[in-house]
Amino acid sequence: MTSPRTTAPGTPPGQGTPSLAVSLDATHLHPGVTDPVMDSMRLLSETAFRYPDAISFASGRPYEEFFAFEDLHRYLDRFVADLRDRGLPEERVKRAVFQYGPTNGVIRDAVARMLATDESIHTTPDSILITHGCQEAILVALRGLFVSPDDVLLTVSPCYVGVTGAAKLLDIPVEAVPERAYGLDPEDVAAVAHRVRSAGKRPVACYVTADFANPSGHSLPLSARRRLLEVAEEHDLLILEDNPYGLFGRAGEQLPTIKALDDSRRVIYLGSFAKTAFPGARVGYLVADQPVVSADGSARPFAEELAKVKSMVTVNTAGIAQAVIGGLLAESGYSLRAATRRLADLYVGHLDLTLACLAEHFPPEDFATHGVRWNVPTGGFFLLVETPFDVDIPALERSARDHGVAWAPMRMFYVGEGGANVIRLGFSSLTRDEVREGIHRLAEFIRASSKG
Amino acid sequence: MTSPRTTAPGTPPGQGTPSLAVSLDATHLHPGVTDPVMDSMRLLSETAFRYPDAISFASGRPYEEFFAFEDLHRYLDRFVADLRDRGLPEERVKRAVFQYGPTNGVIRDAVARMLATDESIHTTPDSILITHGCQEAILVALRGLFVSPDDVLLTVSPCYVGVTGAAKLLDIPVEAVPERAYGLDPEDVAAVAHRVRSAGKRPVACYVTADFANPSGHSLPLSARRRLLEVAEEHDLLILEDNPYGLFGRAGEQLPTIKALDDSRRVIYLGSFAKTAFPGARVGYLVADQPVVSADGSARPFAEELAKVKSMVTVNTAGIAQAVIGGLLAESGYSLRAATRRLADLYVGHLDLTLACLAEHFPPEDFATHGVRWNVPTGGFFLLVETPFDVDIPALERSARDHGVAWAPMRMFYVGEGGANVIRLGFSSLTRDEVREGIHRLAEFIRASSKG
Repeated sequence: MTSPRTTAPGTPPGQGTPSLAVSLDATHLHPGVTDPVMDSMRLLSETAFRYPDAISFASGRPYEEFFAFEDLHRYLDRFVADLRDRGLPEERVKRAVFQYGPTNGVIRDAVARMLATDESIHTTPDSILITHGCQEAILVALRGLFVSPDDVLLTVSPCYVGVTGAAKLLDIPVEAVPERAYGLDPEDVAAVAHRVRSAGKRPVACYVTADFANPSGHSLPLSARRRLLEVAEEHDLLILEDNPYGLFGRAGEQLPTIKALDDSRRVIYLGSFAKTAFPGARVGYLVADQPVVSADGSARPFAEELAKVKSMVTVNTAGIAQAVIGGLLAESGYSLRAATRRLADLYVGHLDLTLACLAEHFPPEDFATHGVRWNVPTGGFFLLVETPFDVDIPALERSARDHGVAWAPMRMFYVGEGGANVIRLGFSSLTRDEVREGIHRLAEFIRASSKG
Repeated sequence: MTSPRTTAPGTPPGQGTPSLAVSLDATHLHPGVTDPVMDSMRLLSETAFRYPDAISFASGRPYEEFFAFEDLHRYLDRFVADLRDRGLPEERVKRAVFQYGPTNGVIRDAVARMLATDESIHTTPDSILITHGCQEAILVALRGLFVSPDDVLLTVSPCYVGVTGAAKLLDIPVEAVPERAYGLDPEDVAAVAHRVRSAGKRPVACYVTADFANPSGHSLPLSARRRLLEVAEEHDLLILEDNPYGLFGRAGEQLPTIKALDDSRRVIYLGSFAKTAFPGARVGYLVADQPVVSADGSARPFAEELAKVKSMVTVNTAGIAQAVIGGLLAESGYSLRAATRRLADLYVGHLDLTLACLAEHFPPEDFATHGVRWNVPTGGFFLLVETPFDVDIPALERSARDHGVAWAPMRMFYVGEGGANVIRLGFSSLTRDEVREGIHRLAEFIRASSKG
């Protein structure tokens, strides 16, 4: 016997009169809909929406001042012109933008060139899959790798919600590798992998951001990157390296990505143009150069196999979006590191200003009375502020309503419990004046809440 | 004990010298990668790719001659101008195109207007979710609805591979409702739903295309549409109605969609702009107006709940792609039926021409000798040709190589066995001359193969 999924008659929302319409019982829907984390994401946006005048440190949106419509037209024209210059007949030029396209994408060459220039990642186009933003790359990679309920994903915790959310959609079990005060420790990855395997399960891959992680802002030192590759080898893990913020550090302080150090193809690299170009293109990619051996002994790069998964998610990445990103890459000489230096300096300036304002409002010598401390990332979009009280959605509501400042509660990002009294500050979309005024307001909120 | 997922050392593909690189064993990857159907899709494309000079009836690509780059620029400008005209401040206009956007989409109003005008589907923007093509809408709807291994999806068989493929990615069991010679019979849906429930499982939803189905070309008569809604009610099913081709019938012969007849919100409607605008936008949508009742008694349209799933697949649909489609909708006065009439006439003309050429090469009076017959759809992109021999990928290879004509083997579209001797012809992307010459070549291939 099964219970009915739907109820009839019911009253549809927003309508006064009952009708014969069915209604769906939320408890019968997939946890991807009903999970509390999904709901707190919604509540976070809704709170931001209800207080549009609050200065918002809640998001990881890129800075908007440099967006210009004429750029879109020019990038598109550039992409088209380059195809024509290569002698492609006009119907094939049109096809690249307008028609269904190859599932793997039409700008893989350009991305491969960019990766070689900017990241010393040397790969071939057939190891690249272009996706609708990095989120789709995460989902597709997870889907390809995880088969049975015994296949476990390790993630750093706190973690970008897109990873735990995608795992939730695919019913993939997740084991947290808790970050330490200094960030992720590779020995902790080894310990969790060992524990998982001892329990008769399979630790398949570990998700990590080496540069300026969301949400914590932490980066891995070079020694930890190398050690993580050894751990992957020792425990037969793949590393899912996500790198949306890597270009936004101080000039001259760049560390190699884990993928750039990866001699044994242990790393699947997840890339995004949301922060280096603009989010509204929704173009990302993955690099998966692992040979997949079929029953007949033939081998193809994992990216080509993952294209089959991608084809069942979105068929292929929008030609028009790829064209715009392709045009931008061409215009930048296939180096986003050079093209985004001005933006990187702006973000580093915002980071320094945020840190300076925090130090001004919460002087270290008064720590005993205010109990507020924060970490000091070396780049990226985020930093963490520890408060002497619990921060949750109601606290955010008070902060936005009474003090005109919004932020994200860190507890949302933990796999399991954690971060109950920690705030994530994202400063990337604000002006310098907003950063100053916002930290001033935040200090007022923290002082008011500490008294309570 | 678990066996290793990776093998080291191995030899990466395309490299002569062995290295320490790991390789992945295909048998350890998800069926979304390893399923034979996924592979035959790839083989189909590869065969088409190897014989670029073959006239291809293999795809469902829209006609390309009307694609024009200046349209893209103009649609984008129109979308931007309309936002400005509504008094939106410039930073919010930019945000709509460049920035992360609302997960549900920014062109829901425009889609709601279009649905009212073109399809007599009267809904509100909050029941609409804009997606990266209809494929994402299918995946997101399935994910939200299907929870346990006992939740069964019913699909018409033969079926669009995007549906069975998405179900495969999500490990959703599928039960076929075999089409009859005249198409889908609602009583067959009832019988399969009954059988599934008798086995202690839950028939959650049935996927169906009422107008010019892919792959069969069949349409449902009005009586069957009404009866299907009754069956849904009697067996507590939702209907997933996919409608990519609905506008491409003969002028004046339009039937109401199932959604337009749906008084009790039994239908989730799946829409696409791939054929009415262009595939390279990858913009589609779903209409899910079912109220979802939460534990606290509050209710919101299912589309808003599904937005949480969508946020973990692609975050939101590309602003630039939505802008282009939004501009096109505005320019068309929110009626694609009117705007695509010229295109619809062209497709109907192609259909008629294909049928005429088939009748010419395989006259009915000679049926006893040639054994070739076909169905007669009333619109859309596809029709079926039954041959007196087995058609598979090797047969396609012979057809493309020796006779210069490609097509799709119908067996790829069956849930289970079926269609072994049937060819799908898609005529939408060809010129009239190519249709004539292509059917001529097809006749040669069929005659040559029949002798064998």
